[in-house]
Amino acid sequence: MDFKKTEEQELLLDSLKTVMERGNFEDYFKECDRNHEYPQKAVDALVEAGFTTLGIPEEFGGTPTDTLTQVMVAEEAHALGYPSLCWINFATEVDDILTFGNKEQQEKILGYALEGKKPFTLGFTEPQAGSDSAAMATTATKRDGKVYINGNKTFNTSADRAPYMLCVCRSGVNESPYKDFSMYLFPMDRPGVAIEKLDKIGNNMCGTYEVHLDDVECEESDLVGEECKGFYQLMKNFEVERLTICAANVGMARCAYDEALRYAAQRMQFGKIIGSFQLVQEKLVDMRIKIENMQNLLYKTAWKKDNGESIMIDSSLVKRYTGQAAFEVIDDAMQIMGGIGYTHDCRISRLWRDQRVYRIMAGTEEIMVHTAGRALIKEAQ
Amino acid sequence: MDFKKTEEQELLLDSLKTVMERGNFEDYFKECDRNHEYPQKAVDALVEAGFTTLGIPEEFGGTPTDTLTQVMVAEEAHALGYPSLCWINFATEVDDILTFGNKEQQEKILGYALEGKKPFTLGFTEPQAGSDSAAMATTATKRDGKVYINGNKTFNTSADRAPYMLCVCRSGVNESPYKDFSMYLFPMDRPGVAIEKLDKIGNNMCGTYEVHLDDVECEESDLVGEECKGFYQLMKNFEVERLTICAANVGMARCAYDEALRYAAQRMQFGKIIGSFQLVQEKLVDMRIKIENMQNLLYKTAWKKDNGESIMIDSSLVKRYTGQAAFEVIDDAMQIMGGIGYTHDCRISRLWRDQRVYRIMAGTEEIMVHTAGRALIKEAQ
Amino acid sequence: MDFKKTEEQELLLDSLKTVMERGNFEDYFKECDRNHEYPQKAVDALVEAGFTTLGIPEEFGGTPTDTLTQVMVAEEAHALGYPSLCWINFATEVDDILTFGNKEQQEKILGYALEGKKPFTLGFTEPQAGSDSAAMATTATKRDGKVYINGNKTFNTSADRAPYMLCVCRSGVNESPYKDFSMYLFPMDRPGVAIEKLDKIGNNMCGTYEVHLDDVECEESDLVGEECKGFYQLMKNFEVERLTICAANVGMARCAYDEALRYAAQRMQFGKIIGSFQLVQEKLVDMRIKIENMQNLLYKTAWKKDNGESIMIDSSLVKRYTGQAAFEVIDDAMQIMGGIGYTHDCRISRLWRDQRVYRIMAGTEEIMVHTAGRALIKEAQ
Amino acid sequence: MDFKKTEEQELLLDSLKTVMERGNFEDYFKECDRNHEYPQKAVDALVEAGFTTLGIPEEFGGTPTDTLTQVMVAEEAHALGYPSLCWINFATEVDDILTFGNKEQQEKILGYALEGKKPFTLGFTEPQAGSDSAAMATTATKRDGKVYINGNKTFNTSADRAPYMLCVCRSGVNESPYKDFSMYLFPMDRPGVAIEKLDKIGNNMCGTYEVHLDDVECEESDLVGEECKGFYQLMKNFEVERLTICAANVGMARCAYDEALRYAAQRMQFGKIIGSFQLVQEKLVDMRIKIENMQNLLYKTAWKKDNGESIMIDSSLVKRYTGQAAFEVIDDAMQIMGGIGYTHDCRISRLWRDQRVYRIMAGTEEIMVHTAGRALIKEAQ
Repeated sequence: MDFKKTEEQELLLDSLKTVMERGNFEDYFKECDRNHEYPQKAVDALVEAGFTTLGIPEEFGGTPTDTLTQVMVAEEAHALGYPSLCWINFATEVDDILTFGNKEQQEKILGYALEGKKPFTLGFTEPQAGSDSAAMATTATKRDGKVYINGNKTFNTSADRAPYMLCVCRSGVNESPYKDFSMYLFPMDRPGVAIEKLDKIGNNMCGTYEVHLDDVECEESDLVGEECKGFYQLMKNFEVERLTICAANVGMARCAYDEALRYAAQRMQFGKIIGSFQLVQEKLVDMRIKIENMQNLLYKTAWKKDNGESIMIDSSLVKRYTGQAAFEVIDDAMQIMGGIGYTHDCRISRLWRDQRVYRIMAGTEEIMVHTAGRALIKEAQ
Repeated sequence: MDFKKTEEQELLLDSLKTVMERGNFEDYFKECDRNHEYPQKAVDALVEAGFTTLGIPEEFGGTPTDTLTQVMVAEEAHALGYPSLCWINFATEVDDILTFGNKEQQEKILGYALEGKKPFTLGFTEPQAGSDSAAMATTATKRDGKVYINGNKTFNTSADRAPYMLCVCRSGVNESPYKDFSMYLFPMDRPGVAIEKLDKIGNNMCGTYEVHLDDVECEESDLVGEECKGFYQLMKNFEVERLTICAANVGMARCAYDEALRYAAQRMQFGKIIGSFQLVQEKLVDMRIKIENMQNLLYKTAWKKDNGESIMIDSSLVKRYTGQAAFEVIDDAMQIMGGIGYTHDCRISRLWRDQRVYRIMAGTEEIMVHTAGRALIKEAQ
Repeated sequence: MDFKKTEEQELLLDSLKTVMERGNFEDYFKECDRNHEYPQKAVDALVEAGFTTLGIPEEFGGTPTDTLTQVMVAEEAHALGYPSLCWINFATEVDDILTFGNKEQQEKILGYALEGKKPFTLGFTEPQAGSDSAAMATTATKRDGKVYINGNKTFNTSADRAPYMLCVCRSGVNESPYKDFSMYLFPMDRPGVAIEKLDKIGNNMCGTYEVHLDDVECEESDLVGEECKGFYQLMKNFEVERLTICAANVGMARCAYDEALRYAAQRMQFGKIIGSFQLVQEKLVDMRIKIENMQNLLYKTAWKKDNGESIMIDSSLVKRYTGQAAFEVIDDAMQIMGGIGYTHDCRISRLWRDQRVYRIMAGTEEIMVHTAGRALIKEAQ
Repeated sequence: MDFKKTEEQELLLDSLKTVMERGNFEDYFKECDRNHEYPQKAVDALVEAGFTTLGIPEEFGGTPTDTLTQVMVAEEAHALGYPSLCWINFATEVDDILTFGNKEQQEKILGYALEGKKPFTLGFTEPQAGSDSAAMATTATKRDGKVYINGNKTFNTSADRAPYMLCVCRSGVNESPYKDFSMYLFPMDRPGVAIEKLDKIGNNMCGTYEVHLDDVECEESDLVGEECKGFYQLMKNFEVERLTICAANVGMARCAYDEALRYAAQRMQFGKIIGSFQLVQEKLVDMRIKIENMQNLLYKTAWKKDNGESIMIDSSLVKRYTGQAAFEVIDDAMQIMGGIGYTHDCRISRLWRDQRVYRIMAGTEEIMVHTAGRALIKEAQ
């Protein structure tokens, strides 16, 4: 075993730190958060420094990078205060297209990714079907050589900025929903597409939308991957998506911990720094333990994926653990800060609101029990 | 023992329910929250129904009411969605003046209270002295028969609307800070008073301010209670203030629980209501247990106060417990709601942000350990 | 509301304290625990002081006492170190017979109860059917005017000392198990009854057994209550049994807390008493909060029962909460004691082992979620 | 990074598994536990297979092995049911002597270690000085060219079988206790040494003793390391000792998890395996997460030590985390087993009692907060 980062990884993280420090974005982020604006200036800085090429194959102009390194970079960005949900996920974000898309789809999508633009919003969750995929009601119906898509999708990140939607639909061919899903990729400016903004309590730099699809006309060639294999494609993709979310969890927790630790080492009360009180030390020590655990579990899972091992169970474990542990760390950090931590002046208050949704989206904590639990039992039988 | 509410209490709570339901304020509250506006319409309804007279002596036009009943009413209002920090605390809010003020002070202050107007903002916490009273730096200096107040106070609720400030100052007479504090009551429109709004992440219907006091001129008769007894007056008052905060905690938790329970009993996933899944039932059962515990502990403490028993330890225990338990209940409620609970459309998202500060203000969870812990040890010695 | 004990309750508890202090049983309990012997001397003292008459109707020579008082007495005994599972439960223990038994059955059973003798062991749980009543396989078969009982029961408390077994059997009449159970009361010395001791890690003063029933011949008049109504009789009884277990939970927690508090107030480390360290104070404060919560919830539930209200939900909530909270309190107490708490010299080590089974027996923590959870959802529909 | 075990490590663990399976020791362990006997037969099997040579330098007849591998072997042994406290710790156990002893001391001590015999009991803790080293009262007084040791030590593992004591004493030279400790190594059969058995609730295969030292005569050459450097030597050693304890924590947790998982996959209730219930799956998933976290944190710390990095903070973090997490895993395992888990027939009941002391010995959970907390704050300043 070896717990050391490679020199290349160290360099990449150092360079990220330089970009973020040079940008000195914190006030800008506060402003964007308050005004519900996308932090384009920070994105531009990352694009310029080449971070958006990581994990995209060389043939498309990218820089081949393993999952472990991508995960470290995503974590570090959040640890340095980069806002969640606005993260430009490189290969992770476009993994479905990289894995299942055809050449033409790959080219148009990856171009956006390289420029740090969200290429598509994933149309999966529906108002009536949260974690219950089988209840999904959006349909793709073939008629006269075309495909018509009808339904409603929700919790669509950046649906206002993404040029495409990657939409999971029922094909109406098989009885079992799991054998009936197909994925279509179509431009968001197609007739019949309408969006409606959701009014969230966090992640305000990145809009989230409900998307209404009213007889949206697609070509048969807009299909991504194989017909009726959409569910399996999706599950594969979720494993990867979860890793990016987990990296954000770890990064946000570190960001809050660093801030609280600095504060505890300076803030005087009762004639000494508050970091000398046992109740504060207890919080800091348990926060640090959780951060260590989150990192180890995340890195190991990414390493497994890079080594071709199944991460079906691990990706659920790490999603469940990092979601809860990160929230606990951030909540403790707020408590250490006292009243200041409850105001917009302190970024812990932003982390606290933003991270909360990661315990819900991309598979709730409870669904992770279901996913991993059944698999553990199966192992034992 | 008897765990039954009196008929009078039941009537009062029923009448409150009627007022709140008739007002149908939820959309109005959402609007106020979004626009950072005080929910005056709801306050007016409560004033009209006579709720602001509870606990104020008859001689001032009030309705004598014991602490237990006041606490039940405050809890119920929050359970029905009434916004926290905007709560009109009757006698609790003006307890210092009722207990230590002179006739003249009582008359001007209680008049406001009866009309549902916040009479004064309490000037206690300072930027450099959170829980550390001894570090308080605001001074009251006597000069030519006048008293001049200098310093900075922070986390002042409704400092923009309250006509007075009740300000805790150092008298400069004794060495021990605990024997040096005095309280002064003066109008907020005095020269030398300036306010600055804090930018919180919750409780947005009620502004919170930093207050700068630059040589504010007071009369000696503006003193409340005895000179140099301010610390003891304050401690007495904190016990009462904590009960109101605890009532809000219990009410907010109930509000979130009711909403989540209703949702769990209707929302279908995987072909059944989500309330039939063990992981949801586990949450609901533990939420209910916590609500029972919070109510019992709160009522017992209020009952003790009404019966002349010391609540020094109990008020710390109930503050610590209800702060944490209420947050856990609301956080679980959000988790049951899924993505919807993270949007402004669902009031759980407001409760989640609003309640969080109650684990910090009026004595943090950690200070409660300190307060109660020392007393328990002393009991055992 | 009124949280005050009656004068009668205070007197009863004082008298119990006197009996226990006069007996000075702690060394004796340690000895019994080590030698796996029943603490007969302590039982005798309670019988002599009349505690075994509480809750038994006057007509049988008892002292009518409400459930609340019984629960307080049981709690207090455990708080004073009386060993769990050896508790003589008065009316609670014989509730099935009091409620459903005929005159003759009542007379023979209550006589034992008044003398502090365990009258019967309840035959319910089976090796293959823990919480799953429907899987119960013991049968009562009628043949030639007799009833023959066959099957295996387990976790039978005091099966070596109890003169009778109250046995739940399938009647073989109805399909639904819930409409097929019947209860029979028969002497343990009947031919066909064999017992086998279980080797537990705690509660060693009270033996627990597996009971094998091989064609045990009963009379039809040995039936308790109505035929095929056994399940409903049992459920009714469980509510009462749970209250006694909960009283033991609260008492054991108090016993451990008292010991740890005393120790924390005296034990010196680093030049001060350990009770002055925040990490110890935090434990003590949270232990005290849990004890308050447990007592309140228990008393309120007992009060409800005494007032004819349903305790179907409450008895599950209080069972779940007190089981977990009591264990946490005792475990914290052990931690405060350090190494000493891990030895037989300190009674916390006994409480720690003994209480653990109360989170499993008479309905596990998990079954309580099931019982209460479904009922809460039903309320909301 | 690389999370793969080396081929050599895999072989070693496989071979350990073979030895343990061939020995089929579980019934033997139960017998030893019941009779408070040392499991010599299992020790012999490990000695024969060469496991006691690991980590001891070649010059003494050992097999050089890094810390990481030693930790993995210790973990695996406990995962396979090997009893805690009886573990033969190779180099870890004799680390003080290996690092600070002279040639002669090393030779006599390592000979025992290679034969799987506990070479010495460490005399550190005293009845009046648990975690408070400064309060240590045992003295080493020089007189006529000899050294006389007086005092009481407690919680001495295997003091009945170990031929030597390594005793930490005050030299009486310096004021600061940290600059006054010296370590002496002397035979337990010296006049003036008396032992007294402690009556623990777990780890019954290995006796724990109080040791009384009454003017025990030593030679000046019995000194280990440097005079007055004993505290520093001890701290160094504690870091290593903690790793072995942590390895036991992880192993015991795995042992309990494996047993509970197997049971959950087979035990039927309500017509299905209990592993299909969400509340059981939730436990299993969280147990697995904790095991992953414990392993990662432990391996990383061992790896750091092997790479010459300081593990001052890490060894505290891993001690705190694995102690608590292992107990939670084992407690959950007991809950999954139901009543059976509470009997000696199920080894989870042994793990539950045995592991508990690891949250107290070698630095309590609370002392770990103190140790790591101060260091984290110092990092931040």
